[in-house]
Amino acid sequence: MRRENFKYYLDGLLEGDRNVLSRSISIIESQTKEDQQLAIQILSALPEAESIRIGVTGAPGVGKSTFIEAFGKTLVEDGHRLAVLAIDPSSLLAGGSILGDKTRMPDLSKRPDVFIRPSASQNYVGGTGAKTYQTMLLCEAAGYDRIIVETVGVGQTEVMVRQLVDFFLLLAQPASGDELQGIKKGIMEHVDGIVVNKADGRLLQEARRTQMELKEAMHYMSDNTEREVLTCSAKEQSGMVEVRDWLLSMINERKANGGFAERRMNQSSDILAQLMHSSIMDWIAASDQVKEQQQLKMNAMNNGELSPIEAWQKFGDWLKIQKPFD
Amino acid sequence: MRRENFKYYLDGLLEGDRNVLSRSISIIESQTKEDQQLAIQILSALPEAESIRIGVTGAPGVGKSTFIEAFGKTLVEDGHRLAVLAIDPSSLLAGGSILGDKTRMPDLSKRPDVFIRPSASQNYVGGTGAKTYQTMLLCEAAGYDRIIVETVGVGQTEVMVRQLVDFFLLLAQPASGDELQGIKKGIMEHVDGIVVNKADGRLLQEARRTQMELKEAMHYMSDNTEREVLTCSAKEQSGMVEVRDWLLSMINERKANGGFAERRMNQSSDILAQLMHSSIMDWIAASDQVKEQQQLKMNAMNNGELSPIEAWQKFGDWLKIQKPFD
Repeated sequence: MRRENFKYYLDGLLEGDRNVLSRSISIIESQTKEDQQLAIQILSALPEAESIRIGVTGAPGVGKSTFIEAFGKTLVEDGHRLAVLAIDPSSLLAGGSILGDKTRMPDLSKRPDVFIRPSASQNYVGGTGAKTYQTMLLCEAAGYDRIIVETVGVGQTEVMVRQLVDFFLLLAQPASGDELQGIKKGIMEHVDGIVVNKADGRLLQEARRTQMELKEAMHYMSDNTEREVLTCSAKEQSGMVEVRDWLLSMINERKANGGFAERRMNQSSDILAQLMHSSIMDWIAASDQVKEQQQLKMNAMNNGELSPIEAWQKFGDWLKIQKPFD
Repeated sequence: MRRENFKYYLDGLLEGDRNVLSRSISIIESQTKEDQQLAIQILSALPEAESIRIGVTGAPGVGKSTFIEAFGKTLVEDGHRLAVLAIDPSSLLAGGSILGDKTRMPDLSKRPDVFIRPSASQNYVGGTGAKTYQTMLLCEAAGYDRIIVETVGVGQTEVMVRQLVDFFLLLAQPASGDELQGIKKGIMEHVDGIVVNKADGRLLQEARRTQMELKEAMHYMSDNTEREVLTCSAKEQSGMVEVRDWLLSMINERKANGGFAERRMNQSSDILAQLMHSSIMDWIAASDQVKEQQQLKMNAMNNGELSPIEAWQKFGDWLKIQKPFD
């Protein structure tokens, strides 16, 4: 793909040009050296921009798309611009849970004040976090001041997303006590609040019961942080304004007491670590000598001279005597 | 943990000592330099051992544990020894799908001829594959000649497991046509066969219908490989001997026509690539100068001198002028 110079992307972003935003994200996701150089140039030049970053997680089937479709509308209602980014550690079995966004969020995807971008699939969690962070910065520079990062509850993405957002929301659904055990165990202390979806029709009572049980469970959390549990119906678009107002009041409270800035500050160490890790991986991938050694060992194995373990051992021996950083 | 010398582990493994096998796997999973050295020593000394490696995948809820419990018994019935390894890209939300094996496979876990080991959770897929391969070699050296690698269908583990096994089995359950679309799309060309579980009671007819639909779908696969679709009931332990005999006849056929050895040969490139990748990661992690630079950039960011992006850029600049492999 033909690339413009970095000023083209910077100017386009600052003008809020959606096409330039899309192309900039593609540059960030690209693996070529040239694109990586260009990406750093663009990112370094971006001015700081105010934003609220919201993570939404939930098991497949709880209605994340429908929720984001309804919730997102309330976010943009008062003149804000929304970017929705999706992280999906793609699974062959599920065919990927986050797909075709035009059909998944038909209303949002038509709006000029909403930008939707599914994630490029990456090979390891560290890389995905670094790319998502960079994508958020681009969106914010382009004037999107409300960011939703959506993730399916599979793989090790929850902790990563928590490190990227100001508010991490768990979307749940009406469930029996037994089923709730599974939710409660791992994730509750990582989220800032829970919304029980599908509080409508014949599930309304069960949704309320689930809400009470989850509230109860909150009392037993070790960290003493208060976490609210709300209900909504994404299908009937009810409860959305309440969720938004609650979330924004929490954010405003934290902005007032310094918690908001402190959390971003704390996150930046993790983000920088992820960014540096991705640089090392790229640097290694670009080394001719590593490639050559890998190829030599591969050939020796394919010729039957070495077993995979022996070839691996010899590669390790070679690596050990390198003095890379002297 | 105190480590013995490598001869202790090697001898113990060759005697089939379960305790030594467990400890050897822990050494392989360990991140310390000493353990990694010891791991390579042990692995390099292992003699080749015959085995059949079977991968089992399937979405949460299809009954993988019950299936492996019933199917595993038929594998060991004729004097074989079975190792069951589980790969679970752990999810906070699900609390991990593969847990406590004593309760999950109560019968198998009591048998002296069966060894069950859940995977250590790893940070990236490449690492998990390398560790699982090494664990298989240890189990095989200890006399386990039937290996089952179990994986939940989340994250990017299916392709990885396919690269490790001689036969990759998809466990499905009775499902409607719509639900089957999801299965068919991504995974069918990666598996060697499908077993529809829960063919019992009131689901029997639907299981048969699902079997026919999946068979039908096989005709439209691009690669012209024949894949059988069987049914079973893990709960009632029916159909297990048929599954075993079918699977072993396929393996024997491939052994006769050279396909078995060819597939292992083809897999070894991928395995070696994963092993070498993990060595590079370990090598980087052990570099004092990389650590020092990372810390310097981290400090500069924490002092407010640099933004995360600027700190990242400066780390990249430092990395670029390193001549690592000259």
